[in-house]
Amino acid sequence: SGLVLVKNPHLDSMEEDVLYHLDLGTKTHNLPAMFGDIKFVCVGGSPNRMRAFAQFMRRELGLAGDGEDVVDICAGSDRYAMYRAGPVLSISHGMGIPSISIMLHELIKLLHHAKCRDVTIIRIGTSGGLGIEAGSVVITDTAVDSSFRPRFEQVVLGDVVVRSTELDKGLAAELLACSREIPGFPTLIGHTMCTYDFYEGQGRLDGALCSFSSEKKLEYLRRAYDAGVRNIEMESTAFAALCGLCGLKGESCSFHLL
Amino acid sequence: SGLVLVKNPHLDSMEEDVLYHLDLGTKTHNLPAMFGDIKFVCVGGSPNRMRAFAQFMRRELGLAGDGEDVVDICAGSDRYAMYRAGPVLSISHGMGIPSISIMLHELIKLLHHAKCRDVTIIRIGTSGGLGIEAGSVVITDTAVDSSFRPRFEQVVLGDVVVRSTELDKGLAAELLACSREIPGFPTLIGHTMCTYDFYEGQGRLDGALCSFSSEKKLEYLRRAYDAGVRNIEMESTAFAALCGLCGLKGESCSFHLL
Repeated sequence: SGLVLVKNPHLDSMEEDVLYHLDLGTKTHNLPAMFGDIKFVCVGGSPNRMRAFAQFMRRELGLAGDGEDVVDICAGSDRYAMYRAGPVLSISHGMGIPSISIMLHELIKLLHHAKCRDVTIIRIGTSGGLGIEAGSVVITDTAVDSSFRPRFEQVVLGDVVVRSTELDKGLAAELLACSREIPGFPTLIGHTMCTYDFYEGQGRLDGALCSFSSEKKLEYLRRAYDAGVRNIEMESTAFAALCGLCGLKGESCSFHLL
Repeated sequence: SGLVLVKNPHLDSMEEDVLYHLDLGTKTHNLPAMFGDIKFVCVGGSPNRMRAFAQFMRRELGLAGDGEDVVDICAGSDRYAMYRAGPVLSISHGMGIPSISIMLHELIKLLHHAKCRDVTIIRIGTSGGLGIEAGSVVITDTAVDSSFRPRFEQVVLGDVVVRSTELDKGLAAELLACSREIPGFPTLIGHTMCTYDFYEGQGRLDGALCSFSSEKKLEYLRRAYDAGVRNIEMESTAFAALCGLCGLKGESCSFHLL
């Protein structure tokens, strides 16, 4: 049916569903009227960038206004920012798996309550590249953890549950084809490694703590490269796992910043 | 000497240290002049609340102005917000361990570069309480993970390193004594459980995914209570581990919101 799936038998019996961190709810907002026609959701860490993206999309789609007037739909909360441009929602998710997970739980319920159909979700964040040209875009085929395994370990009531982190291969191929139409825009498909830490977790030598040598760092990054990793960020495994379980066609494209 | 410790031999040989997510740096800013007299750092998830806290502190300390004019020192970055009120810094850290970790690495380097001495850091965030009155403040003696163990597992180059999560017991006692002077302000000392997930990780029945019954949830929370847990949040183990390693006198006081 193309509907977004929530996999929670408790939701049906709830009188009201408050999407607390989005400052939205089923009793306070007419979610089908506000969001029923959404077909694409783009997410990224920074609120300012997601605002700029919504303005860009408004111009690209030829929507009225110059985009300067985009309104933060979640203005009542300072946890996330949400903008819309026609059928496209643009939402910030902060940094790291816990932060994106809270947003995705509430977004998935939002799309469910709004009865949205055939929604595609794309993460358009930044990342560190591995053996690739600065400015490249990596389209993730599979998100892997810090041991290069294609899995996401979710703790549920103290027990570890392992989830798949495969993303939509058809969508990845479509996005790669789009990139080919734009000259000077290096794009590749590869594994994306997702870590819980930016400094020690990604082998940086400039954190407040660093217990390893430059050689050990390079050895680790070389092993990652040999395992197919082409970039490193902090959200993709949770993103892939949650989108996959809830029937959202999802893809992660990260821009290699430095 | 009371100085903040960085444990990274590479830092000394760096020509410049850019605190990227704070939009500060050793070449672009005179950090000793800007921050050398800081004695207290208070951190919490929400930027708006940390702004309000800085305004409150300015009034409490009798500083000039009505507090309306507090300036975001990290205004060039939308990752975190930072305000100051005399010797007190007030900084937001977003949600979850990865987000607070990035901020703490850069904050600890900031205090180091600024040659600050005898700095006390207090997390003043929100949390869910366990068997306690709504509106209570829990002062954390020990942060525990989702299996109620007093430890933080940090992945360094793919290997797990286990760190202690004890907080400063003297500071906890001092804060408890302060709270006794304010009537109608229920405060207690207890363990704080830190999870990577807000919905499935904390036993919530209203996420997009929920595979457990209400009974299983209560059983888990009862086990947590029996292990000494009095509240649940998403940052305390990383906070305790990083502050402990870097010689910052640290404490976590969470307000039980609901």
